[in-house]
Amino acid sequence: MPLLSNRSAVDPFHAMDVLAEANRCKAEGRPVLSLAVGQPGAPAPRLAVEAAEAALKTGRIGYTDALGRADLRAGIASLYRSRYGADVDPARIVVTTGSSAGFNLAFLTLFDPGDAVAIARPGYPAYRNILKALGLTVLEVPVGPETDYTLSPESLEAEARAADVRLKGVLLASPANPTGTVTGRVQLKRLADWCHDRDIAFISDEIYHGLTYGADEASAAEFAPEAIIINSFSKYYRMTGWRIGWMVLPDTLVRPVECLAQSLYISAPELSQIAALAALEAGEELEIYRRACRDNRDFLAKRLPEIGLPLLSPMDGAFYAYVDVSRFTNDSMEFARRMLVETDVAATPGLDFDPLEGHRAMRFSYAGTLQDMTEATDRLAAWLR
Amino acid sequence: MPLLSNRSAVDPFHAMDVLAEANRCKAEGRPVLSLAVGQPGAPAPRLAVEAAEAALKTGRIGYTDALGRADLRAGIASLYRSRYGADVDPARIVVTTGSSAGFNLAFLTLFDPGDAVAIARPGYPAYRNILKALGLTVLEVPVGPETDYTLSPESLEAEARAADVRLKGVLLASPANPTGTVTGRVQLKRLADWCHDRDIAFISDEIYHGLTYGADEASAAEFAPEAIIINSFSKYYRMTGWRIGWMVLPDTLVRPVECLAQSLYISAPELSQIAALAALEAGEELEIYRRACRDNRDFLAKRLPEIGLPLLSPMDGAFYAYVDVSRFTNDSMEFARRMLVETDVAATPGLDFDPLEGHRAMRFSYAGTLQDMTEATDRLAAWLR
Repeated sequence: MPLLSNRSAVDPFHAMDVLAEANRCKAEGRPVLSLAVGQPGAPAPRLAVEAAEAALKTGRIGYTDALGRADLRAGIASLYRSRYGADVDPARIVVTTGSSAGFNLAFLTLFDPGDAVAIARPGYPAYRNILKALGLTVLEVPVGPETDYTLSPESLEAEARAADVRLKGVLLASPANPTGTVTGRVQLKRLADWCHDRDIAFISDEIYHGLTYGADEASAAEFAPEAIIINSFSKYYRMTGWRIGWMVLPDTLVRPVECLAQSLYISAPELSQIAALAALEAGEELEIYRRACRDNRDFLAKRLPEIGLPLLSPMDGAFYAYVDVSRFTNDSMEFARRMLVETDVAATPGLDFDPLEGHRAMRFSYAGTLQDMTEATDRLAAWLR
Repeated sequence: MPLLSNRSAVDPFHAMDVLAEANRCKAEGRPVLSLAVGQPGAPAPRLAVEAAEAALKTGRIGYTDALGRADLRAGIASLYRSRYGADVDPARIVVTTGSSAGFNLAFLTLFDPGDAVAIARPGYPAYRNILKALGLTVLEVPVGPETDYTLSPESLEAEARAADVRLKGVLLASPANPTGTVTGRVQLKRLADWCHDRDIAFISDEIYHGLTYGADEASAAEFAPEAIIINSFSKYYRMTGWRIGWMVLPDTLVRPVECLAQSLYISAPELSQIAALAALEAGEELEIYRRACRDNRDFLAKRLPEIGLPLLSPMDGAFYAYVDVSRFTNDSMEFARRMLVETDVAATPGLDFDPLEGHRAMRFSYAGTLQDMTEATDRLAAWLR
C-alpha cells in the first residue's frame, strides 16, 4: 500500500469543498445559490470568447514557449504603461496557468524548506497550503482594525520576533481576500522598501486589481523592480475556468522561473493565452462588471448587518464580504454545512482564511449577480430568524 | 535583492528551450521544421473542437470541482472498461492540468524531502527536474539493450544497493520517452507486484497509450489497484496546448490529492475538460493519427540510419526516434544548436534525457507530418555529408 507523505497533510481549501458539495446539490436539481467561490457571474469578455472561437477555427492549439506567447507578454507589459504609468520590459513577464502556478513557481524559486514566509491572517488559504506542502514555515501575521487590515514593517517585525524566525519572504494581497483591504501606494512602497533593505523577497498579489471601488490602487511595478508580482485574468477579466495569469519578475528570476515552469507546467493553455490577449482590450465591458460588483457590494454592506451578519472588514476591493457569525454559531464549518442543506445557499467558512478566529466568521462572494445576492440574503434572513 | 533558493537550480528542459528558440526563428520568417517536442501535427479531434465551440456559445467557463467535472471523470472510467476490460470507479479518477500536474501531485502526496524515487535513464527530463525541485532523491536506473530498455526488480535492486538508498517510489513510462519502449503486461505486473510487496509506490506513466505499433499495451489499472496511473489527452488525443490529463488513484490517495489540487491548481481548465470528454468519442479519427505516426516511424526507422544516425532504442510506441550522433559530435547541445542555425531543423539534445550518455544522442519527434519528416531528413542528409 503506498504511504502518504507527511507534507500531503495540508488542510482542504474549504471553499472548494463547498463548491463541490454545491455542484452535487445542483446536479440533484436543488436551487443552489453559490456565493462560495470568486466565480464572476458573467462570462469572459465578448472579445476573448471571439478570439477563442477564431483560434479554434483556424489553428492548432499547441505548446507555447514556457514563458508564454510573445504577443501576450507584450500585451501585458503594455498594460503596466497604460494602467500604472510603469515601464515593464515584456521579457520580465511570465504567463502562468492561473495565479496558482505563479505562487507555486515563486515559492519554489525563492525559498528552501524551513524558510519563513509571512502572510496576513485572515488571508487566502492556498498560500498557507502551498507553503506547507513545499516545506516552508508560514508566519501568519494578524490583521484587523488596529492595523488597517494590512501588513506593516512593525507588525512583521513584532511577529517574527515573537516566533523567533528570520523572514525570507513577505506576501501581501491588495485588494485582499477575504478582507477586501486595499493597501495604499504609500504603505505598499514602505513595505516593499523594508523588504528590499533586508533581502526579503516581496511578493505582491495583485489578482483583484481592477476591482476597487474608490480606493487608491497601486502596483508594486510602479516602484519596486525587485518585487515578484502575481496577477490573473480570473477576476477583473472574468476568466476563472480558463486558468490564465501572469507574473512580473525581477530580471534575475526570469530564467530560474522559466526552467521550473518548463518541467512543472510545460506551458499555460494556449487557447486561454489567445483569449486573454483579446480580453486586455475589452475596455468598457470590464468596467460594466466592476460597477456590477460595486452595486453588489453596496447592497451587501447594508443588507448583511441588517440580517444579523455584521462586517468584519472593509470592502474596498475584490468581491468578498467577511462577516461575523458569532451571534449564531461558534463553528463556521458546521454553520456553512447547515446553511447549504437548509437554504441552498453556499458560502465559505471563515476557518478557511483564519485558523484561529475563523470559527466565528463566514465569507460571502459577491462576484455573481445582484439578483443572486438579493435572493440569497432573503433566504438567509428567513433562516436566521 | 531577492535570493534564489537552492532547489530552483534545476536543469532546463532543453526541449522547451529548443522550442522557444525555434519559435523565435519562425517569427523571423525562417522555414523551421520543429521535431523538438511531442506536438502532434494535426489539431485536436473534430468532436473536441466542436464541443469547445458549443461551450463558448452557451455557457460560462468557470472553476470546476478540484477533482474535475463529474461527466469527464465518468467518461474516463468507461475508457478503462472499453479499452482494457478493467473496472475503475469514477471516484478514483482525478482530472489534472495535463500530466504535468499529475506528476507534481503524485510526488507531493507520496514523498517527503530526501525520499528516493527510481526512474529510467534515458527518460523524460521533467521527472528528474520536478523530483529535484521537491527535494527528492532521484535514482536513475540505466536501461538499454541488456534490460530490454525497461526497469525490472533486478535492476532496481542492484542500483538501489549500489547507491545505498531505500526506494520509496518507482516511476515507469510505457510507452517510454525517448526510447519508445513498450513494457509488456507480464513485466509491468511483475514490477507492480514487486513494489506492492515492499510498500513502494508504483507510478505508471501511460501518457503515450494508444500510440503503439503492434506491441502489447497494458495498463496498470488491469492488475494493480494500488498503482498511481498518470495519463493525458496531449498525445493520442492531440490536445497538448489544452493542458488536460488525468490520474487513476488508489482510494486512499483521492482525498489527499484533492486537498493539494484545490490549493495548487484550483481546477483544470474547464473548456479543455469539456473538449476532452468529446475527444473520448473520436474513434476513427484517433486511429488515423496513430497510423500516421506509424508511417512516420517506419519512414524514420529506415531513413535515419541511412543518413548516419543509427537508432539507439526500439520504436514500439510513442513518437520519438532516439539516435546515436557520436559519428558527428560528442556534444549534443552544440550539435542541436548548430543544426537549428544551419538547417532550420529543431530537435532535442540527448542530454535532456540522459545526463551521462546523452552527449552523444539526439531525439527526433515524429508527432508531425510525414512531409515534415521527409523534408527534415533531406536537409539533415545534405548537412551531415
